[in-house]
Order: sequence, then C-alpha cells, then structure tokens
Amino acid sequence: MKPLDDQQRAARDWFESLRTRICAAFEEIERGAGSDAAFAFTPWERTDEDGSPGGGGVRGQMNGAVFEKVGVNVSTVGGRFAPEFAATVAGAEDDPSFFATGISLVAHMANPHVPAVHMNTRFLTTTRRWFGGGADLNPAIPYDEDTAAFHARLRAACAAHDPTFYPRFSKWAEEYFWLPHRQVPRGVGGIFYDHLEGHFDAHFAFTRDVGEAFLDIFPRIVRRRMDTPFSEADRQALLEYRGRYVEFNLLYDRGTLFGLKTGGNIDAILMSLPPLARWA
Amino acid sequence: MKPLDDQQRAARDWFESLRTRICAAFEEIERGAGSDAAFAFTPWERTDEDGSPGGGGVRGQMNGAVFEKVGVNVSTVGGRFAPEFAATVAGAEDDPSFFATGISLVAHMANPHVPAVHMNTRFLTTTRRWFGGGADLNPAIPYDEDTAAFHARLRAACAAHDPTFYPRFSKWAEEYFWLPHRQVPRGVGGIFYDHLEGHFDAHFAFTRDVGEAFLDIFPRIVRRRMDTPFSEADRQALLEYRGRYVEFNLLYDRGTLFGLKTGGNIDAILMSLPPLARWA
Repeated sequence: MKPLDDQQRAARDWFESLRTRICAAFEEIERGAGSDAAFAFTPWERTDEDGSPGGGGVRGQMNGAVFEKVGVNVSTVGGRFAPEFAATVAGAEDDPSFFATGISLVAHMANPHVPAVHMNTRFLTTTRRWFGGGADLNPAIPYDEDTAAFHARLRAACAAHDPTFYPRFSKWAEEYFWLPHRQVPRGVGGIFYDHLEGHFDAHFAFTRDVGEAFLDIFPRIVRRRMDTPFSEADRQALLEYRGRYVEFNLLYDRGTLFGLKTGGNIDAILMSLPPLARWA
Repeated sequence: MKPLDDQQRAARDWFESLRTRICAAFEEIERGAGSDAAFAFTPWERTDEDGSPGGGGVRGQMNGAVFEKVGVNVSTVGGRFAPEFAATVAGAEDDPSFFATGISLVAHMANPHVPAVHMNTRFLTTTRRWFGGGADLNPAIPYDEDTAAFHARLRAACAAHDPTFYPRFSKWAEEYFWLPHRQVPRGVGGIFYDHLEGHFDAHFAFTRDVGEAFLDIFPRIVRRRMDTPFSEADRQALLEYRGRYVEFNLLYDRGTLFGLKTGGNIDAILMSLPPLARWA
C-alpha cells in the first residue's frame, strides 16, 4: 500500500477520532444504566491481491446492557481491486489502484423501544476521489418523535452545506434502504450519499458534520427510550424486525459486498449482523 | 401457464406425494415426543411476468417440540423468465419459456444434538428438460456416526443407478455447500446434482430414490439424538451455527436466487431461514 497523501491522512485521522468519541459516548450510556460494558478493540491487517500489505483496520465491539451489540469499525486499506470488481467502481475501470478509509457503525439495542442504527462515512481514492456515507434509523417500534428528531438533525447538517443535500440524500436513503423482495423499507430512513467529489475541503467538512450530527442525536434518542418497559411480545417483534436487517445486509448492502470483494476482515464485515434474529 | 405434459404431471405428482409422506413422518416424530404439533399448509399462486397465471405452490410449516421450525414446500410454476435471468438458465437463452416443479425442505431442530437438514429435488423444462436436487446435513454438534449413516444411505441410492453418481454428486455438494467468505463448509455434506437430462425415466427413478433415501435416513437420525440432554452453551452454539445457514442462503444459494428472480412466494423462499440465529 502506498504512503497516504495529506487528504487521505486527514480523512483517516478524522474517522479514527470520531470512532473514539462515539465509543466513549456509548460507554457513558452504559455507565448510566449501571453497566460496566466497554468496547473491545481488535486490529486486523489486510493482504492485497498480490500478497503485499494492503492496510487494515480496527474492529470495536461492545456487548452491553443498553447496546446489546454494537460494532464501530475503522479501516484504511489500499492496493489493487480484482479486475472484475474494478470494472464496477468509478475511476477504477482502467486502473484498479484504490485507497479507502472510513468508519462504519451498527448498533443493535436490547430494548425494543430503542431503534437500531447504522452510520458509515468514507473517503475513496481511485483515479478519482470522493466522499460517501449515510445513516439510517431502524426502530422495531417506531416513534414519530424519534424519526423526526433524527431526520431534523441530519437535515440541519446538510443545510449548512448545500440546500439540495437533504432532499437528495434523504430520497437516496429511501431508495437504497429498501427490501425489494418484501416491498418494505428497511427502517425509517435517514440520508445516503456517494461520489461527492471535486471539492475536497467542502465535502470533508460535510462528512465531518454528518458524523457530528450522528454523535449529537443518536445518544439523545437512546436515553429517551432505554428505560421504557417492554413485554416479551415486544422483544420477539424486535428479533423478527432484525431479520430484515440481516436480509438487507446479505442480499443488497454495497458495503458488505465491497468488503467481501476486497478481502476485508470477515469479522468486521459481519459485525453488522444482529446478536439474535428470528424468522418465525 | 401451459397445460402440463405427462412427464411434468408425473414429476409434480411424485413431489406432492413425497411431501405428504415426509410431513406425516415428521408429525409422527412429534407424537413420539408428546407434542401435537402439525403442519399448517398455505397455498399460494404465482403471476407470470406478463400478468397471466404462472402456477403456484403450497407452503407447509410446522413449529414443534423436536422440529423447532420445518418448512416443506412444493411448487409447480411456469411462464417466461425475465430476459436477463433467461440468459443464465440452460436452454432458455433464446426462448425464455420455462416450467419447474419440485419439493424443497429445510428443518431446524430444537435440540443441538439433532442436525438441521436440507433436501430439494426438482424437474425443470426449458427448451431442455432435466432433474436436479440434493440433500445435506447441518449438525451444530457433529456425530461421525450420523454423518456416515447419512452419506451411506445416499451412496446406496446413487449406486443403484450409476456408479459415478455418488462420487460426483457428493463432491459437488462439498463444493456447493461452502462458505467462501469463512472458508468453511456449510455442514457435513451430502449430495448435489443438476442437469440430469436425456433419460427421463432413469433420472426420475433416481430422483424418487433420493427422496426415499431421505425419508428413510433422516427420521432415524432424529430419533437417535432427540432425547440427548443439552446445555445452554450447546443451545447458544446451535444458534450461532444457524448463522452460517442464513449467510449461505442469502449470499449464495441458487434456489433462493431462483425464487427471488422468478417472482416466487417470499414466505416460501425464506421459510428456509432458522427460527432463531445468533451472531455474537
């Protein structure tokens, strides 16, 4: 893997510092619930197609009282895409060299009243370079108030950068987080964006604000719902709802596919899967 | 959907009668365990691409004391493949007309000492016509004795028809029931075969014997293990083992893909998924 340039290093440093702050915030929520659960961090290394070092990452996982299972991964990888995969990635059609750095987070919550959540932001380099990412809320028991608060916070992050971002990116999330075989959405949406290129500073600032928005709003939603009593039927509904998440990630998710196709770490890629899921 | 010809009708009748006998055998096992669980049967109809009737099937499902969740489906469908899918099916490259009839069975067992099992046999018609199928054993806690008995019974069924069948079809199962992302097999194998064409009577007789072999051996393995005491740790290991089954079916299984691509019944296609699975 080639040495990182200034933009790549800046992006990597941001994703790693965001990871540290998110993990601290989540552990603090566990403290508030009387749990001493903490993230365990496991570094992994990637070998490129030709056997040379291809970067790596750090898996972070916590199994707590509030966060039944949460994975927060950072990875910084590079090398050459396999030819058939290169053909499908912007700017890699003729030159398969790539670099990618990003953060990826999925939280499955113990209480069915607390929504599961996904957040991912990344910086890619091929012969082109761009930011992408997204965040979406997945409540087994939806509360309009939570959905509205989540969207409003992301809307504000978008609005500070470009008036077209929220309308475009929330619509993109609606289309992307969709289960065609069931004809239902995966959750209650959020934002999804990709190929933001041509203005590194502006797009990096936007990507940072997406991370800040997530870090601001999700812990608030968790605290609002984590002490709500729930029944065994609620819990079973949660396990069944999680089945949709599994179906989406294994049948459709680009990030899962990207990881499997680029020799990513299996445990990191599949950390998004829920601790327990049910198909009655 | 066109009227069935004699071969298609004979194959369908066999799959339906096998279904009835298997369900009776499984219900009898439940009786032996003091459970009155019974299969619930739900018919479904398929609409072809152009909106015309495209056949259908019957989902059979039982959630019992021994069979935590078992699905036994028969379907008889026909019409025209979508163009991009037709290109991938033998004999449908230039004419997308197809007919398919078959039985598909997946059993997830409550006791971790009893193996999960899959069995499917089918008769396809495009401009060509062939039989395919397979069966494989998926024990969370493997017993060499069970694995050997399962393979021996399938070997005997194969040997009565062609000395090359068992070596070829058991190797095919090893290759097919494989999780490349984990570099582990899905279970302990069995047989897998496809495109057996050119000799309808002989291949139909073989396909019937695969069904008979399954119906003979699997209930015996179940009875041998169903009363074995198990720990909570065994049960957790079972739930984790089932995760591999989910990964295989959603990431790689051709039958799942075939169903999703041909407008099959979602509940029938996903009936193979376990009642509960765990990704720690």
